[in-house]
Amino acid sequence: MKQIDSTKNTTVKLIKQLTKRKKREKEQLFVIEGRHLVEEALVYGNLITDIFVIADELLPPEEKRKNIPITIVTEAVMKDMSQTVTPPGIIALCQMIPDEAVEPEENEMYVLVDNVQDPGNLGTIIRTADAVGAKAVILGEGTVDVYNDKVIRSTQGSFFHVPVLQGELEDWIKRCRDNSIPVFGTSLQGGTTHTAIEPQPGFALIIGNEGAGVNEKLLEKTDQNIYVPIYGKAESLNVSVATGILLYYLHKVN
Amino acid sequence: MKQIDSTKNTTVKLIKQLTKRKKREKEQLFVIEGRHLVEEALVYGNLITDIFVIADELLPPEEKRKNIPITIVTEAVMKDMSQTVTPPGIIALCQMIPDEAVEPEENEMYVLVDNVQDPGNLGTIIRTADAVGAKAVILGEGTVDVYNDKVIRSTQGSFFHVPVLQGELEDWIKRCRDNSIPVFGTSLQGGTTHTAIEPQPGFALIIGNEGAGVNEKLLEKTDQNIYVPIYGKAESLNVSVATGILLYYLHKVN
Repeated sequence: MKQIDSTKNTTVKLIKQLTKRKKREKEQLFVIEGRHLVEEALVYGNLITDIFVIADELLPPEEKRKNIPITIVTEAVMKDMSQTVTPPGIIALCQMIPDEAVEPEENEMYVLVDNVQDPGNLGTIIRTADAVGAKAVILGEGTVDVYNDKVIRSTQGSFFHVPVLQGELEDWIKRCRDNSIPVFGTSLQGGTTHTAIEPQPGFALIIGNEGAGVNEKLLEKTDQNIYVPIYGKAESLNVSVATGILLYYLHKVN
Repeated sequence: MKQIDSTKNTTVKLIKQLTKRKKREKEQLFVIEGRHLVEEALVYGNLITDIFVIADELLPPEEKRKNIPITIVTEAVMKDMSQTVTPPGIIALCQMIPDEAVEPEENEMYVLVDNVQDPGNLGTIIRTADAVGAKAVILGEGTVDVYNDKVIRSTQGSFFHVPVLQGELEDWIKRCRDNSIPVFGTSLQGGTTHTAIEPQPGFALIIGNEGAGVNEKLLEKTDQNIYVPIYGKAESLNVSVATGILLYYLHKVN
Protein backbone atom coordinates (compact mmCIF):
# COMPACT_ATOMS: atom_id res chain seq x y z
CA MET A 1 0.00 0.00 0.00
CA LYS A 2 1.19 3.47 -0.86
CA GLN A 3 1.29 6.18 1.74
CA ILE A 4 0.93 9.95 1.50
CA ASP A 5 1.81 12.13 4.44
CA SER A 6 2.37 15.49 2.78
CA THR A 7 -0.28 17.88 1.50
CA LYS A 8 2.24 18.88 -1.16
CA ASN A 9 1.97 15.48 -2.83
CA THR A 10 0.96 15.79 -6.50
CA THR A 11 -2.03 13.43 -6.10
CA VAL A 12 -3.32 15.52 -3.21
CA LYS A 13 -2.97 18.59 -5.41
CA LEU A 14 -4.84 16.87 -8.25
CA ILE A 15 -7.73 15.90 -5.96
CA LYS A 16 -8.00 19.51 -4.84
CA GLN A 17 -7.86 20.83 -8.41
CA LEU A 18 -10.75 18.52 -9.30
CA THR A 19 -13.07 20.77 -7.28
CA LYS A 20 -12.95 22.91 -10.45
CA ARG A 21 -15.26 21.89 -13.30
CA LYS A 22 -12.69 22.76 -15.98
CA LYS A 23 -10.11 20.48 -14.43
CA ARG A 24 -12.67 17.67 -14.08
CA GLU A 25 -13.59 17.95 -17.73
CA LYS A 26 -10.00 18.09 -18.87
CA GLU A 27 -8.96 15.03 -16.87
CA GLN A 28 -12.35 13.25 -17.16
CA LEU A 29 -12.05 12.52 -13.45
CA PHE A 30 -14.09 13.34 -10.35
CA VAL A 31 -13.92 12.73 -6.63
CA ILE A 32 -16.34 11.09 -4.23
CA GLU A 33 -16.23 11.10 -0.43
CA GLY A 34 -17.47 8.69 2.16
CA ARG A 35 -17.82 4.94 2.44
CA HIS A 36 -21.43 4.88 1.23
CA LEU A 37 -20.64 6.59 -2.09
CA VAL A 38 -17.49 4.52 -2.54
CA GLU A 39 -19.55 1.34 -2.14
CA GLU A 40 -22.18 2.59 -4.59
CA ALA A 41 -19.45 3.38 -7.13
CA LEU A 42 -18.00 -0.13 -6.68
CA VAL A 43 -21.41 -1.66 -7.31
CA TYR A 44 -21.77 0.49 -10.44
CA GLY A 45 -18.59 -0.96 -11.94
CA ASN A 46 -15.28 0.21 -13.30
CA LEU A 47 -15.22 3.82 -12.16
CA ILE A 48 -12.79 4.09 -9.26
CA THR A 49 -9.11 4.38 -10.13
CA ASP A 50 -7.76 5.08 -6.62
CA ILE A 51 -8.96 4.97 -3.02
CA PHE A 52 -7.48 7.17 -0.29
CA VAL A 53 -8.18 6.27 3.30
CA ILE A 54 -6.96 7.25 6.76
CA ALA A 55 -7.31 3.73 8.20
CA ASP A 56 -7.69 0.21 6.81
CA GLU A 57 -10.93 -0.44 8.68
CA LEU A 58 -12.78 2.22 6.68
CA LEU A 59 -12.22 0.26 3.47
CA PRO A 60 -14.99 -1.78 1.83
CA PRO A 61 -14.19 -5.53 1.92
CA GLU A 62 -11.42 -6.67 -0.40
CA GLU A 63 -13.67 -8.77 -2.65
CA LYS A 64 -15.72 -5.67 -3.45
CA ARG A 65 -12.84 -3.40 -4.24
CA LYS A 66 -10.98 -5.91 -6.39
CA ASN A 67 -7.55 -4.59 -7.38
CA ILE A 68 -8.11 -0.87 -6.97
CA PRO A 69 -4.93 0.72 -5.56
CA ILE A 70 -5.26 1.91 -1.95
CA THR A 71 -3.29 4.79 -0.48
CA ILE A 72 -3.12 5.41 3.25
CA VAL A 73 -3.08 9.13 4.03
CA THR A 74 -2.63 11.07 7.26
CA GLU A 75 -5.60 12.86 8.81
CA ALA A 76 -4.05 16.19 7.83
CA VAL A 77 -3.84 15.09 4.19
CA MET A 78 -7.43 13.79 4.28
CA LYS A 79 -8.65 17.09 5.72
CA ASP A 80 -6.80 18.92 2.96
CA MET A 81 -8.31 16.76 0.20
CA SER A 82 -11.84 16.75 1.62
CA GLN A 83 -14.61 19.20 0.70
CA THR A 84 -16.58 18.47 3.87
CA VAL A 85 -16.33 20.03 7.33
CA THR A 86 -16.09 16.58 8.91
CA PRO A 87 -14.07 14.48 6.44
CA PRO A 88 -15.42 10.92 6.28
CA GLY A 89 -11.90 9.46 6.11
CA ILE A 90 -12.27 7.83 2.69
CA ILE A 91 -12.09 9.43 -0.74
CA ALA A 92 -12.04 7.89 -4.19
CA LEU A 93 -10.86 9.19 -7.53
CA CYS A 94 -13.26 8.15 -10.32
CA GLN A 95 -13.47 8.23 -14.08
CA MET A 96 -16.42 10.13 -15.49
CA ILE A 97 -19.38 8.08 -16.70
CA PRO A 98 -19.72 8.39 -20.49
CA ASP A 99 -23.20 9.59 -21.54
CA GLU A 100 -25.20 6.65 -22.82
CA ALA A 101 -27.53 7.13 -25.77
CA VAL A 102 -30.97 7.11 -24.15
CA GLU A 103 -33.99 6.98 -26.42
CA PRO A 104 -37.18 8.07 -24.63
CA GLU A 105 -39.60 5.16 -24.23
CA GLU A 106 -43.34 5.25 -23.82
CA ASN A 107 -44.62 4.67 -20.26
CA GLU A 108 -41.34 5.72 -18.70
CA MET A 109 -40.59 8.83 -16.61
CA TYR A 110 -37.97 11.46 -17.46
CA VAL A 111 -36.89 14.53 -15.52
CA LEU A 112 -35.66 17.45 -17.63
CA VAL A 113 -33.64 19.99 -15.62
CA ASP A 114 -33.42 23.53 -16.98
CA ASN A 115 -30.79 25.74 -15.35
CA VAL A 116 -31.00 24.56 -11.74
CA GLN A 117 -28.14 26.31 -9.93
CA ASP A 118 -27.92 24.96 -6.40
CA PRO A 119 -25.87 21.75 -6.07
CA GLY A 120 -27.97 20.53 -3.13
CA ASN A 121 -31.14 21.01 -5.15
CA LEU A 122 -29.82 19.12 -8.18
CA GLY A 123 -28.56 16.27 -6.02
CA THR A 124 -31.88 16.00 -4.23
CA ILE A 125 -33.77 16.06 -7.55
CA ILE A 126 -31.66 13.15 -8.83
CA ARG A 127 -32.30 11.25 -5.58
CA THR A 128 -36.05 11.82 -5.92
CA ALA A 129 -36.04 10.87 -9.62
CA ASP A 130 -34.35 7.61 -8.62
CA ALA A 131 -36.86 7.01 -5.81
CA VAL A 132 -39.91 7.44 -8.04
CA GLY A 133 -38.37 5.16 -10.65
CA ALA A 134 -37.50 7.63 -13.41
CA LYS A 135 -35.61 6.26 -16.40
CA ALA A 136 -33.19 9.20 -16.77
CA VAL A 137 -32.46 12.76 -15.66
CA ILE A 138 -31.49 15.15 -18.46
CA LEU A 139 -29.52 18.28 -17.63
CA GLY A 140 -29.95 21.19 -20.00
CA GLU A 141 -27.33 23.85 -20.57
CA GLY A 142 -26.70 26.13 -17.60
CA THR A 143 -27.47 23.55 -14.92
CA VAL A 144 -24.84 23.06 -12.24
CA ASP A 145 -22.28 20.33 -13.04
CA VAL A 146 -23.43 16.94 -11.81
CA TYR A 147 -19.82 16.04 -10.90
CA ASN A 148 -19.75 18.90 -8.37
CA ASP A 149 -18.97 17.21 -5.04
CA LYS A 150 -22.04 18.65 -3.33
CA VAL A 151 -24.35 17.41 -6.09
CA ILE A 152 -22.99 13.89 -5.78
CA ARG A 153 -23.19 13.92 -1.97
CA SER A 154 -26.80 15.16 -2.11
CA THR A 155 -27.81 12.34 -4.46
CA GLN A 156 -26.95 9.94 -1.60
CA GLY A 157 -25.84 7.36 -4.15
CA SER A 158 -28.65 7.85 -6.67
CA PHE A 159 -26.10 9.34 -9.05
CA PHE A 160 -24.96 5.72 -9.54
CA HIS A 161 -28.53 4.38 -9.94
CA VAL A 162 -30.15 6.53 -12.60
CA PRO A 163 -28.53 7.82 -15.81
CA VAL A 164 -27.85 11.56 -15.62
CA LEU A 165 -27.20 12.98 -19.09
CA GLN A 166 -26.33 16.29 -20.66
CA GLY A 167 -28.94 17.10 -23.26
CA GLU A 168 -30.58 19.68 -25.46
CA LEU A 169 -33.96 20.11 -23.77
CA GLU A 170 -35.88 21.33 -26.82
CA ASP A 171 -34.75 18.23 -28.64
CA TRP A 172 -35.73 16.04 -25.67
CA ILE A 173 -39.21 17.57 -25.53
CA LYS A 174 -39.68 16.81 -29.21
CA ARG A 175 -38.40 13.26 -28.92
CA CYS A 176 -40.59 12.54 -25.89
CA ARG A 177 -43.69 13.84 -27.64
CA ASP A 178 -42.82 11.93 -30.81
CA ASN A 179 -42.74 8.81 -28.63
CA SER A 180 -46.18 9.48 -27.08
CA ILE A 181 -44.71 10.63 -23.77
CA PRO A 182 -46.65 13.66 -22.47
CA VAL A 183 -44.38 16.56 -21.51
CA PHE A 184 -45.27 18.78 -18.55
CA GLY A 185 -43.54 22.09 -17.90
CA THR A 186 -43.69 23.83 -14.54
CA SER A 187 -44.83 27.43 -14.53
CA LEU A 188 -46.66 29.72 -12.13
CA GLN A 189 -47.83 31.83 -15.06
CA GLY A 190 -50.33 30.32 -17.43
CA GLY A 191 -50.14 26.85 -15.98
CA THR A 192 -52.81 24.69 -14.44
CA THR A 193 -52.91 23.22 -10.92
CA HIS A 194 -51.02 19.90 -11.01
CA THR A 195 -54.02 17.97 -9.68
CA ALA A 196 -56.00 18.96 -12.80
CA ILE A 197 -53.78 16.46 -14.64
CA GLU A 198 -54.45 12.74 -14.34
CA PRO A 199 -51.54 10.58 -13.12
CA GLN A 200 -49.75 9.04 -16.10
CA PRO A 201 -47.95 5.75 -16.72
CA GLY A 202 -45.13 7.75 -18.28
CA PHE A 203 -44.28 11.44 -18.70
CA ALA A 204 -41.47 13.99 -18.90
CA LEU A 205 -41.40 16.75 -16.29
CA ILE A 206 -39.39 19.92 -16.88
CA ILE A 207 -38.18 21.76 -13.81
CA GLY A 208 -36.46 25.09 -13.83
CA ASN A 209 -34.20 27.63 -12.26
CA GLU A 210 -34.70 28.51 -8.57
CA GLY A 211 -35.58 32.12 -9.36
CA ALA A 212 -36.62 32.32 -12.99
CA GLY A 213 -38.32 28.95 -13.44
CA VAL A 214 -38.36 27.12 -16.77
CA ASN A 215 -37.29 29.01 -19.90
CA GLU A 216 -40.30 30.38 -21.85
CA LYS A 217 -39.11 28.79 -25.09
CA LEU A 218 -39.36 25.36 -23.50
CA LEU A 219 -42.75 26.06 -21.92
CA GLU A 220 -44.17 26.82 -25.36
CA LYS A 221 -43.29 23.34 -26.57
CA THR A 222 -44.87 21.23 -23.81
CA ASP A 223 -48.21 19.41 -23.77
CA GLN A 224 -49.25 21.25 -20.63
CA ASN A 225 -47.70 23.52 -18.01
CA ILE A 226 -48.51 22.89 -14.38
CA TYR A 227 -47.79 24.27 -10.93
CA VAL A 228 -48.16 23.27 -7.30
CA PRO A 229 -50.65 25.66 -5.68
CA ILE A 230 -49.65 27.73 -2.65
CA TYR A 231 -52.35 27.91 0.03
CA GLY A 232 -50.33 29.89 2.59
CA LYS A 233 -48.12 32.97 2.41
CA ALA A 234 -44.96 31.40 0.96
CA GLU A 235 -43.99 32.86 -2.39
CA SER A 236 -42.91 29.53 -3.78
CA LEU A 237 -41.74 26.04 -2.93
CA ASN A 238 -38.15 24.88 -2.95
CA VAL A 239 -37.51 23.43 -6.44
CA SER A 240 -36.56 19.97 -5.18
CA VAL A 241 -39.65 19.81 -2.95
CA ALA A 242 -41.89 20.86 -5.87
CA THR A 243 -40.22 18.20 -8.02
CA GLY A 244 -40.96 15.55 -5.39
CA ILE A 245 -44.61 16.58 -5.10
CA LEU A 246 -45.06 16.56 -8.89
CA LEU A 247 -43.20 13.33 -9.61
CA TYR A 248 -45.07 11.43 -6.92
CA TYR A 249 -48.40 12.93 -7.92
CA LEU A 250 -47.99 12.34 -11.67
CA HIS A 251 -46.59 8.84 -11.30
CA LYS A 252 -49.42 6.40 -11.94
CA VAL A 253 -48.85 3.32 -9.82
CA ASN A 254 -49.91 0.14 -11.62
CA MET B 1 -26.85 57.55 11.00
CA LYS B 2 -24.21 55.67 12.89
CA GLN B 3 -21.21 54.23 11.14
CA ILE B 4 -19.01 51.22 11.86
CA ASP B 5 -15.75 50.77 10.03
CA SER B 6 -13.90 48.41 12.34
CA THR B 7 -14.45 44.68 12.74
CA LYS B 8 -13.40 45.17 16.37
CA ASN B 9 -16.56 47.15 17.12
CA THR B 10 -18.55 45.57 19.99
CA THR B 11 -21.76 45.36 17.91
CA VAL B 12 -19.91 43.51 15.16
CA LYS B 13 -18.59 41.14 17.80
CA LEU B 14 -22.10 40.62 19.20
CA ILE B 15 -23.50 39.81 15.74
CA LYS B 16 -20.78 37.23 15.29
CA GLN B 17 -21.36 35.71 18.73
CA LEU B 18 -25.02 35.30 17.86
CA THR B 19 -24.07 32.52 15.46
CA LYS B 20 -23.95 30.47 18.71
CA ARG B 21 -27.26 29.13 20.02
CA LYS B 22 -26.28 29.75 23.67
CA LYS B 23 -25.56 33.40 23.01
CA ARG B 24 -28.83 33.79 21.09
CA GLU B 25 -30.79 32.31 23.95
CA LYS B 26 -29.01 34.39 26.56
CA GLU B 27 -29.55 37.65 24.68
CA GLN B 28 -32.91 36.61 23.16
CA LEU B 29 -31.62 38.03 19.88
CA PHE B 30 -30.98 36.64 16.41
CA VAL B 31 -29.67 37.86 13.08
CA ILE B 32 -31.20 37.88 9.60
CA GLU B 33 -29.48 38.63 6.31
CA GLY B 34 -30.71 40.01 3.04
CA ARG B 35 -33.31 42.55 1.99
CA HIS B 36 -36.08 39.98 1.49
CA LEU B 37 -35.89 38.65 5.06
CA VAL B 38 -35.56 42.19 6.47
CA GLU B 39 -38.74 43.18 4.65
CA GLU B 40 -40.58 40.08 5.89
CA ALA B 41 -39.49 40.86 9.47
CA LEU B 42 -40.73 44.44 9.08
CA VAL B 43 -44.12 43.17 7.87
CA TYR B 44 -44.26 40.82 10.86
CA GLY B 45 -43.93 43.70 13.31
CA ASN B 46 -41.72 44.81 16.15
CA LEU B 47 -38.81 42.43 15.81
CA ILE B 48 -35.89 44.37 14.35
CA THR B 49 -33.83 46.46 16.76
CA ASP B 50 -31.03 47.50 14.38
CA ILE B 51 -30.27 47.42 10.67
CA PHE B 52 -26.73 47.31 9.30
CA VAL B 53 -26.19 48.14 5.66
CA ILE B 54 -23.31 48.88 3.31
CA ALA B 55 -25.24 51.44 1.24
CA ASP B 56 -28.44 53.47 1.68
CA GLU B 57 -30.02 52.13 -1.49
CA LEU B 58 -30.22 48.62 -0.05
CA LEU B 59 -32.59 49.83 2.70
CA PRO B 60 -36.32 49.17 2.56
CA PRO B 61 -38.33 52.43 2.16
CA GLU B 62 -38.41 54.69 5.22
CA GLU B 63 -42.14 54.29 5.87
CA LYS B 64 -41.68 50.56 6.23
CA ARG B 65 -38.74 50.65 8.57
CA LYS B 66 -40.20 53.34 10.84
CA ASN B 67 -37.68 54.51 13.44
CA ILE B 68 -35.36 51.51 13.48
CA PRO B 69 -31.77 52.72 13.90
CA ILE B 70 -29.61 52.29 10.79
CA THR B 71 -25.86 51.77 10.85
CA ILE B 72 -23.73 52.12 7.75
CA VAL B 73 -20.89 49.60 7.72
CA THR B 74 -17.94 49.08 5.41
CA GLU B 75 -17.86 46.08 3.08
CA ALA B 76 -15.12 44.54 5.21
CA VAL B 77 -17.29 44.83 8.32
CA MET B 78 -20.31 43.38 6.46
CA LYS B 79 -18.22 40.46 5.25
CA ASP B 80 -17.08 39.86 8.82
CA MET B 81 -20.63 39.92 10.21
CA SER B 82 -22.17 37.84 7.42
CA GLN B 83 -22.60 34.06 7.45
CA THR B 84 -22.92 33.84 3.67
CA VAL B 85 -20.23 33.52 1.01
CA THR B 86 -21.71 36.45 -0.91
CA PRO B 87 -22.94 38.86 1.78
CA PRO B 88 -26.21 40.52 0.71
CA GLY B 89 -25.10 43.88 2.14
CA ILE B 90 -27.89 44.20 4.69
CA ILE B 91 -28.21 42.53 8.09
CA ALA B 92 -30.71 43.07 10.89
CA LEU B 93 -30.57 42.30 14.57
CA CYS B 94 -33.93 40.96 15.80
CA GLN B 95 -35.60 40.07 19.05
CA MET B 96 -36.75 36.48 19.34
CA ILE B 97 -40.43 35.78 18.77
CA PRO B 98 -42.06 34.64 22.04
CA ASP B 99 -43.83 31.27 21.67
CA GLU B 100 -47.56 31.81 21.40
CA ALA B 101 -49.94 29.39 23.07
CA VAL B 102 -51.33 27.39 20.14
CA GLU B 103 -54.24 25.06 20.84
CA PRO B 104 -54.67 22.48 18.06
CA GLU B 105 -57.90 23.05 16.13
CA GLU B 106 -59.93 20.56 14.16
CA ASN B 107 -59.55 20.76 10.36
CA GLU B 108 -56.19 22.48 10.59
CA MET B 109 -52.77 21.11 9.64
CA TYR B 110 -49.79 20.79 11.98
CA VAL B 111 -46.26 19.64 11.29
CA LEU B 112 -44.47 17.97 14.21
CA VAL B 113 -40.69 17.84 13.77
CA ASP B 114 -38.78 15.18 15.69
CA ASN B 115 -35.01 15.63 15.78
CA VAL B 116 -34.35 17.00 12.29
CA GLN B 117 -30.67 17.97 12.26
CA ASP B 118 -29.91 19.73 9.00
CA PRO B 119 -30.65 23.48 9.02
CA GLY B 120 -31.48 23.50 5.30
CA ASN B 121 -33.96 20.66 5.79
CA LEU B 122 -35.71 22.35 8.70
CA GLY B 123 -35.92 25.67 6.85
CA THR B 124 -37.34 23.97 3.76
CA ILE B 125 -39.88 22.05 5.88
CA ILE B 126 -41.10 25.32 7.41
CA ARG B 127 -41.34 26.86 3.92
CA THR B 128 -43.40 23.89 2.70
CA ALA B 129 -45.63 23.93 5.79
CA ASP B 130 -46.34 27.59 5.07
CA ALA B 131 -47.04 26.85 1.39
CA VAL B 132 -49.58 24.11 2.10
CA GLY B 133 -51.31 26.31 4.67
CA ALA B 134 -50.32 24.60 7.93
CA LYS B 135 -51.37 26.32 11.15
CA ALA B 136 -48.11 25.73 13.04
CA VAL B 137 -44.80 23.86 13.02
CA ILE B 138 -43.83 22.26 16.34
CA LEU B 139 -40.21 21.47 17.02
CA GLY B 140 -39.55 18.66 19.45
CA GLU B 141 -36.43 18.38 21.56
CA GLY B 142 -33.24 17.69 19.62
CA THR B 143 -34.27 19.50 16.45
CA VAL B 144 -31.82 22.10 15.13
CA ASP B 145 -32.43 25.63 16.48
CA VAL B 146 -34.86 27.54 14.29
CA TYR B 147 -32.88 30.76 14.88
CA ASN B 148 -29.84 29.22 13.20
CA ASP B 149 -29.06 31.55 10.28
CA LYS B 150 -29.22 28.78 7.70
CA VAL B 151 -32.63 27.62 8.92
CA ILE B 152 -34.03 31.14 8.61
CA ARG B 153 -32.49 31.66 5.16
CA SER B 154 -33.91 28.34 3.93
CA THR B 155 -37.42 29.28 5.08
CA GLN B 156 -37.27 32.10 2.48
CA GLY B 157 -39.42 34.25 4.76
CA SER B 158 -41.89 31.57 5.85
CA PHE B 159 -40.37 31.76 9.33
CA PHE B 160 -42.31 35.03 9.61
CA HIS B 161 -45.54 33.56 8.16
CA VAL B 162 -46.22 30.44 10.19
CA PRO B 163 -45.79 30.01 13.97
CA VAL B 164 -42.79 27.80 14.76
CA LEU B 165 -42.96 26.60 18.36
CA GLN B 166 -40.89 24.49 20.70
CA GLY B 167 -43.06 21.70 22.02
CA GLU B 168 -43.29 18.35 23.72
CA LEU B 169 -44.33 16.08 20.86
CA GLU B 170 -45.99 13.36 22.93
CA ASP B 171 -48.15 16.04 24.47
CA TRP B 172 -48.92 17.49 21.04
CA ILE B 173 -49.95 14.10 19.68
CA LYS B 174 -52.34 13.67 22.59
CA ARG B 175 -53.81 17.16 22.24
CA CYS B 176 -54.30 16.74 18.49
CA ARG B 177 -56.07 13.42 18.92
CA ASP B 178 -58.19 14.83 21.77
CA ASN B 179 -59.29 17.52 19.31
CA SER B 180 -60.24 15.02 16.58
CA ILE B 181 -57.16 15.76 14.48
CA PRO B 182 -55.74 12.52 13.04
CA VAL B 183 -52.02 12.11 13.70
CA PHE B 184 -49.80 10.44 11.10
CA GLY B 185 -46.28 9.32 11.88
CA THR B 186 -43.74 8.57 9.16
CA SER B 187 -42.03 5.22 9.29
CA LEU B 188 -40.56 2.78 6.81
CA GLN B 189 -41.13 -0.06 9.26
CA GLY B 190 -44.67 -1.08 10.00
CA GLY B 191 -46.26 1.81 8.18
CA THR B 192 -48.66 1.88 5.26
CA THR B 193 -48.17 3.53 1.85
CA HIS B 194 -49.27 7.15 2.15
CA THR B 195 -51.80 6.80 -0.66
CA ALA B 196 -53.69 4.19 1.40
CA ILE B 197 -54.82 7.15 3.55
CA GLU B 198 -57.59 9.44 2.33
CA PRO B 199 -56.73 13.17 2.12
CA GLN B 200 -57.96 14.93 5.25
CA PRO B 201 -59.32 18.41 5.99
CA GLY B 202 -56.95 18.56 8.95
CA PHE B 203 -54.15 16.39 10.34
CA ALA B 204 -50.85 16.37 12.19
CA LEU B 205 -47.83 14.90 10.41
CA ILE B 206 -44.76 13.83 12.37
CA ILE B 207 -41.47 13.86 10.52
CA GLY B 208 -38.22 12.62 11.89
CA ASN B 209 -34.47 12.57 11.93
CA GLU B 210 -32.58 12.27 8.61
CA GLY B 211 -31.04 8.93 9.58
CA ALA B 212 -33.11 7.43 12.37
CA GLY B 213 -36.59 8.63 11.42
CA VAL B 214 -39.28 9.34 14.01
CA ASN B 215 -38.74 8.13 17.58
CA GLU B 216 -40.48 4.77 18.26
CA LYS B 217 -42.22 6.13 21.34
CA LEU B 218 -43.97 8.73 19.22
CA LEU B 219 -44.88 6.25 16.47
CA GLU B 220 -46.72 4.12 19.05
CA LYS B 221 -49.03 7.02 19.87
CA THR B 222 -50.20 7.98 16.36
CA ASP B 223 -53.42 7.09 14.55
CA GLN B 224 -51.46 5.63 11.66
CA ASN B 225 -47.89 5.48 10.43
CA ILE B 226 -47.21 6.06 6.75
CA TYR B 227 -44.36 6.16 4.26
CA VAL B 228 -43.69 7.29 0.72
CA PRO B 229 -42.89 4.19 -1.36
CA ILE B 230 -39.60 3.90 -3.21
CA TYR B 231 -39.94 2.47 -6.72
CA GLY B 232 -36.30 2.85 -7.74
CA LYS B 233 -32.98 2.06 -6.09
CA ALA B 234 -32.75 5.06 -3.71
CA GLU B 235 -32.62 4.02 -0.06
CA SER B 236 -34.80 6.91 1.03
CA LEU B 237 -36.06 10.36 0.14
CA ASN B 238 -34.67 13.60 1.52
CA VAL B 239 -36.75 14.43 4.60
CA SER B 240 -37.94 17.80 3.29
CA VAL B 241 -38.95 16.25 -0.05
CA ALA B 242 -40.87 13.47 1.75
CA THR B 243 -42.56 16.12 3.89
CA GLY B 244 -43.64 18.01 0.78
CA ILE B 245 -45.04 14.89 -0.88
CA LEU B 246 -46.97 13.92 2.26
CA LEU B 247 -48.32 17.37 3.13
CA TYR B 248 -49.56 17.99 -0.41
CA TYR B 249 -51.00 14.51 -0.69
CA LEU B 250 -52.76 14.52 2.70
CA HIS B 251 -54.11 18.06 2.34
CA LYS B 252 -57.72 17.82 1.24
CA VAL B 253 -58.52 20.80 -0.94
CA ASN B 254 -62.07 22.07 -0.37
